[in-house]
Amino acid sequence: MILIKNIKYIDVEESIVKGTCDILIDGNRVKKIANNIEEASAYVIDGADKLLMPGLFNTHNHVAMSVFRNYADDMELMDWLQNKIWPLESKLTAEDIYWASLLTFIELVKTGTTAFNDMYMFCERVFDAASEIGMRGLIARGMTNDAFNKEREANIRDMYEKYHQKDGLLRLAIAPHAIYTTGLDYLKSCIDLAKELDLIIHTHASETLTEVNNSYKEYRKSPIKIFKELGMFDQKTILAHCVHLSEEDMDIIAKNNALVSLNVSSNMKLASGIPDIKNMFVRGDKLAIGTDGASSNNMQNMFTEMRAVSLAAKARSLDPKVMSAGEVLKLATINPYKYIFDEDVNISEGSLADLILINLDNTNLKPQNNLISAMVYSMNGSEVDTTIINGKIIMENKKIKGIDEDLVVRKVEEIIKNI
Amino acid sequence: MILIKNIKYIDVEESIVKGTCDILIDGNRVKKIANNIEEASAYVIDGADKLLMPGLFNTHNHVAMSVFRNYADDMELMDWLQNKIWPLESKLTAEDIYWASLLTFIELVKTGTTAFNDMYMFCERVFDAASEIGMRGLIARGMTNDAFNKEREANIRDMYEKYHQKDGLLRLAIAPHAIYTTGLDYLKSCIDLAKELDLIIHTHASETLTEVNNSYKEYRKSPIKIFKELGMFDQKTILAHCVHLSEEDMDIIAKNNALVSLNVSSNMKLASGIPDIKNMFVRGDKLAIGTDGASSNNMQNMFTEMRAVSLAAKARSLDPKVMSAGEVLKLATINPYKYIFDEDVNISEGSLADLILINLDNTNLKPQNNLISAMVYSMNGSEVDTTIINGKIIMENKKIKGIDEDLVVRKVEEIIKNI
Repeated sequence: MILIKNIKYIDVEESIVKGTCDILIDGNRVKKIANNIEEASAYVIDGADKLLMPGLFNTHNHVAMSVFRNYADDMELMDWLQNKIWPLESKLTAEDIYWASLLTFIELVKTGTTAFNDMYMFCERVFDAASEIGMRGLIARGMTNDAFNKEREANIRDMYEKYHQKDGLLRLAIAPHAIYTTGLDYLKSCIDLAKELDLIIHTHASETLTEVNNSYKEYRKSPIKIFKELGMFDQKTILAHCVHLSEEDMDIIAKNNALVSLNVSSNMKLASGIPDIKNMFVRGDKLAIGTDGASSNNMQNMFTEMRAVSLAAKARSLDPKVMSAGEVLKLATINPYKYIFDEDVNISEGSLADLILINLDNTNLKPQNNLISAMVYSMNGSEVDTTIINGKIIMENKKIKGIDEDLVVRKVEEIIKNI
Repeated sequence: MILIKNIKYIDVEESIVKGTCDILIDGNRVKKIANNIEEASAYVIDGADKLLMPGLFNTHNHVAMSVFRNYADDMELMDWLQNKIWPLESKLTAEDIYWASLLTFIELVKTGTTAFNDMYMFCERVFDAASEIGMRGLIARGMTNDAFNKEREANIRDMYEKYHQKDGLLRLAIAPHAIYTTGLDYLKSCIDLAKELDLIIHTHASETLTEVNNSYKEYRKSPIKIFKELGMFDQKTILAHCVHLSEEDMDIIAKNNALVSLNVSSNMKLASGIPDIKNMFVRGDKLAIGTDGASSNNMQNMFTEMRAVSLAAKARSLDPKVMSAGEVLKLATINPYKYIFDEDVNISEGSLADLILINLDNTNLKPQNNLISAMVYSMNGSEVDTTIINGKIIMENKKIKGIDEDLVVRKVEEIIKNI
């Protein structure tokens, strides 16, 4: 049991700060919220001058791409992919994926992220790395239509047996990479596999104008409409990016209960554009927030990304009231937890204990006029002191337990040197 | 003297990382860059696993507005100003300005900013606060056409005698607030005063579409064109914002050698729009970067702002190559130092010793593929370890010398409670 004494916390659902009080965590749940809780057997954390809030959920990532952080920037997308990323990616081994994933998990935990959604390769080793650090997540092999289709399907069935839901924290997903890399037939077979195994689908959707234009040219339809017609939305689906949607697309997403992962920094950096967040929100699209991989974002910091989402939404719509701080916190916490894991992470008795503690004594959070605004607009991420996942302390006093950070960094430095 | 041993540093002019070597600082200059410098009387800093770069220059700010940080967000500009900011601002005393300025200076120094450009009120106390912490800066009273014109002019002449250039670090500027708050006659008299005292002019320019539209309605000209015709550009001029410029405006700025302070986060948060940075750059406009006040940005972190400028430029122009990391570093360092203080801060023998040391052992900067990209795209600001201004160590090991941070925070918390 963990007992947090004298703590203020954010009720994200109601957008208010509550407390000061004591909060008792038992197993993986918040058991009790009250004044002066006594529990002799609990591990006690002093909450004075700290703030408790639900952990952040990073809903679109390629975690092992940390190896390419700052490796190739300020380039055209296809030049970047074809001449920089793809040649090196093809040389990565399963072992490389393990170490590079760990490096990203370290950064995620340090900046308050408790859950992730990954699409990449050698997923067994992503499962291993996530287990080692103790993160909650959804892991999928990025599927493109190529010579390895059969092999990949066999591998997915194998991972499903070995890893899916085995420790209660990690699940397998099915990730057709994107309409332009799968084609319709293979995309349909990915959807069928997801239905058979009852897994969430994770795909790139309408990221660039070129992708959408080509879809209209080839199929006379938008990617979203094709997804709908192929039955993708019969399963829960996470649509990454959605920068270039028609109003019909937005309505389809709302009606079919898909989840949009906004990845605003990545879209801006690759010059794909800024998604029409206000319009998506108004039409009832479910929204969440991801960083995308470290190769296109360069930070794996969800505090930076929350701020980016709010600012981008306001700038694109010319409406300063859209994506208020309180709303953004929902996108980064309770929305994706509810959708992906069917869990309530809003702090209350019985809620899931994926929690973070913020040091409020940093001058950049002063004066303390409004802590909800502060969390979205003033945090740099380094103020996170403690990260709790599934009721377990993963990081305390900024130190991640059981992980040799220097070793991880050394291993990743070796990988990029060798390939 | 300060001797930094075994250090890598960024040559911002050439966009390359140099070293490892030793760097000797004597007085307020870099005296020598070489291998194995011996200097018995120097204070030695170990540069291993650190990076040295020029300090950042924040070219548009209202430093005392830290008191309003997170006080009122997600609002329409005029609602925000009229109902939240202005009523409280009118209650601020000179003493309040002193403490609130100190709070911002603390955040600036901690995140690697060595020089600032301020426009606000009770400037004597801004000079005092800046002197106390040891920052370099340009300070001006925001001038609006009202009953206090005569009084304000007398006050400026007084400050000119007492503060301008007195310690070699701080200068007075003349800051007509904006075209819509001065009118033409008063604006002209501000320009005349700047000419008489030979001071730099600092003004808000074309921040919102409403401002520009009203200017065309009332004067049949853009604000930039009016500034030009009134002779503003006979003096060096810092134009804050420039979100809504015509191509003619951009040409006027280039030809007349004014300096544009981009304040992208503030513009996005207030939903004013995104400036056409690529077009300004292509046309030869001199560019620099500011955060704007903490009330509209909520962070006083120039690393966050460098990243914002690059991403906003790319997203608006749909060109991922524009505002590369190397280019952005120039905007944040050598450009404004050259323009405002006529100083060369690019690290070389004889350059001004306004310098910052970055801890490279943070996992968010790993692997070390490209340190120039890392400085613009991966920093959260907390990695700054040491800040040197005018050859003096202002902060070391993240601790600011001679400042009681707790006292400053307590004072600012009291101010907002009392007004």
